[in-house]
Amino acid sequence: MTPNLTSGAESLEISWPDGTVGQFPYIWLRDSDPSGFHAKTGERDFDLTSVPLDLAPHKAEITADALILTWTPGATPSRFDLDWVKAHRPGQVRYDPADIAPVPWRAELGDHGVPRKDASALMSSNDALAEWLEQTKRYGLSIVTGLADDPEAGETVARRIGHLRETNFGVTFEVMSKPDPINLAYTSDALPLHTDLTNQDAPPGYQFLHCIANEAQGGGSTFCDGAAVAEDLRTADPQAFDILSTVSVPFRFHDNETDIRSRKRVIELGAKGEVREVCFNAHLADILDLDPSTMTAFYRAYRKFMQMTRDPAYGIAFRLCGGEMVVFDNRRVMHGREAFDPSTGFRHLRGCYVDRGEWDSRLRVLKRV
Amino acid sequence: MTPNLTSGAESLEISWPDGTVGQFPYIWLRDSDPSGFHAKTGERDFDLTSVPLDLAPHKAEITADALILTWTPGATPSRFDLDWVKAHRPGQVRYDPADIAPVPWRAELGDHGVPRKDASALMSSNDALAEWLEQTKRYGLSIVTGLADDPEAGETVARRIGHLRETNFGVTFEVMSKPDPINLAYTSDALPLHTDLTNQDAPPGYQFLHCIANEAQGGGSTFCDGAAVAEDLRTADPQAFDILSTVSVPFRFHDNETDIRSRKRVIELGAKGEVREVCFNAHLADILDLDPSTMTAFYRAYRKFMQMTRDPAYGIAFRLCGGEMVVFDNRRVMHGREAFDPSTGFRHLRGCYVDRGEWDSRLRVLKRV
Repeated sequence: MTPNLTSGAESLEISWPDGTVGQFPYIWLRDSDPSGFHAKTGERDFDLTSVPLDLAPHKAEITADALILTWTPGATPSRFDLDWVKAHRPGQVRYDPADIAPVPWRAELGDHGVPRKDASALMSSNDALAEWLEQTKRYGLSIVTGLADDPEAGETVARRIGHLRETNFGVTFEVMSKPDPINLAYTSDALPLHTDLTNQDAPPGYQFLHCIANEAQGGGSTFCDGAAVAEDLRTADPQAFDILSTVSVPFRFHDNETDIRSRKRVIELGAKGEVREVCFNAHLADILDLDPSTMTAFYRAYRKFMQMTRDPAYGIAFRLCGGEMVVFDNRRVMHGREAFDPSTGFRHLRGCYVDRGEWDSRLRVLKRV
Repeated sequence: MTPNLTSGAESLEISWPDGTVGQFPYIWLRDSDPSGFHAKTGERDFDLTSVPLDLAPHKAEITADALILTWTPGATPSRFDLDWVKAHRPGQVRYDPADIAPVPWRAELGDHGVPRKDASALMSSNDALAEWLEQTKRYGLSIVTGLADDPEAGETVARRIGHLRETNFGVTFEVMSKPDPINLAYTSDALPLHTDLTNQDAPPGYQFLHCIANEAQGGGSTFCDGAAVAEDLRTADPQAFDILSTVSVPFRFHDNETDIRSRKRVIELGAKGEVREVCFNAHLADILDLDPSTMTAFYRAYRKFMQMTRDPAYGIAFRLCGGEMVVFDNRRVMHGREAFDPSTGFRHLRGCYVDRGEWDSRLRVLKRV
């Protein structure tokens, strides 16, 4: 049974035997004609200005597997695969293998609930890699175990996904106590939960912290899911949630070589009101410049969020061992560490970032059928 | 004459002899105390949760050059430099050397109106570099002349600013006609005006195209200021402007190795309604997925914008010569090229990107006094 066609003034209606109905504006059909895309690059070659906006086909036909539109008598018609037409009907959310719903987590997850994957599987198997990409995206956090005894073993795993995101701290960075630190990560101080580089227009996406040595007393790693904290705040204190998701505040990092500034909302919402991103870093928060009339309300909301990140109901903690690597979505999951005593042993993590775009891209390519 | 202090319930009011009045919430003063920032890294060490929200100073004093607040009798007071307090009063826009108002331009600018700077000046003089960063940001476009006869001479200039932004096309990329192109830039086809990599979460900021050879017939470079087009559209067709600045559409690039997708508005507005960014690339626009009820209105607005980019009132064109480099803000200025005939000679540009954040950072560091 072929679908049924009804030609309207501006669009074609197609009704499938299974009850699916699609409205297809003519200008959309003309702009989406597969022959208008470059044979080698897949990019659109068709020039939209070459046709009038109110065009309509001279003739519309349907066969068992195709929609055929003749725009001008005698000219080559546009031919669409019928399954493609159904999957791409306007207004329909399109399938995306990287569209993975986040599972918010709280302290109950525990360190044993964090997804774990062996490095050798990730290096040798595309299926293992795809599964790990999905799982890490779902929880915003995972641990890679069994890394080779090589300081570059962590970034080698990261490069299986895509190129590394360079920042003012380099392509990779060494987290250890340094004599003349340019940031607090390079001290032995405790670091409260935060997301990295909120002072950048686009804070880095996934962060990789490869533990090369962790022999000092202290220095445990702490995590909390910003998506869970934000969602709970939305319920418990809608006014605070509203302020943090609408008012932007200045962030800044500066040293001898750089002075990088950006404004950010602490909670960034997506088109459907979902929590898409959390930007939380008290170290990098610049002197606030809000109007005096909103300042106190902002501080109330911001301090409440900060207190929630310290609430044992949200945090998990574990001690990374040499040869392990923690991987987390820096735009969702906050990380921190306990203070350590550098006189008792060496602690050295090597870090790098891969942005969300490259992560999702690799997942889509691996899921191609 | 010292300023006058008035203590309120939640904040301090300071009135300066010149008539300036500032409201300083106590919680802001406590959070901004200079002693709460790390001595070496400049990052905030103060823990906001360590004080109550409704704190108030026990005593507030003012001297000729300082504001001194005693929070608890006997404890070390907070001491603020008075000039700093005045410059940072809440609600006040803070000075930023990188805050350069864009000057929209149209065809009248001509190729002779494009700022030009000699590469040797940029490499040897910080003042010349700062002036060029400012000018290029103002117009979104400039030409660097007199590059050394070295394929890396362009990126060497770019690295004076900061690290290069890597993408799926590499840290640098070669724009020339290739036998098996993965994108239309790598053909000899004409390229209509567009911005690059609209399919990425954060499209690259400044683009550098170093002309190594341009001996083929054709192959002129074309530019148009997206900020000017958008502002004129706002006046001429507010409905179209409204649609393009609120409705996001899908962009996508995919090849054997990647499948990078992102939704974008064609016109992205800043907090004050100013045009902050233009994302326009018909090649990378994915099959539109808007609701059928908004599809026709979107196409009308989008096609109008597209027609404006082709209007001779906006575009400028010039032919790059070997040893020249064009630099432009890829998130504002659209670029394109005329077709060329690869059988008549060699055309080779080498490109790279430096993001807006690094650009502004370098400007701030160079402008430090």
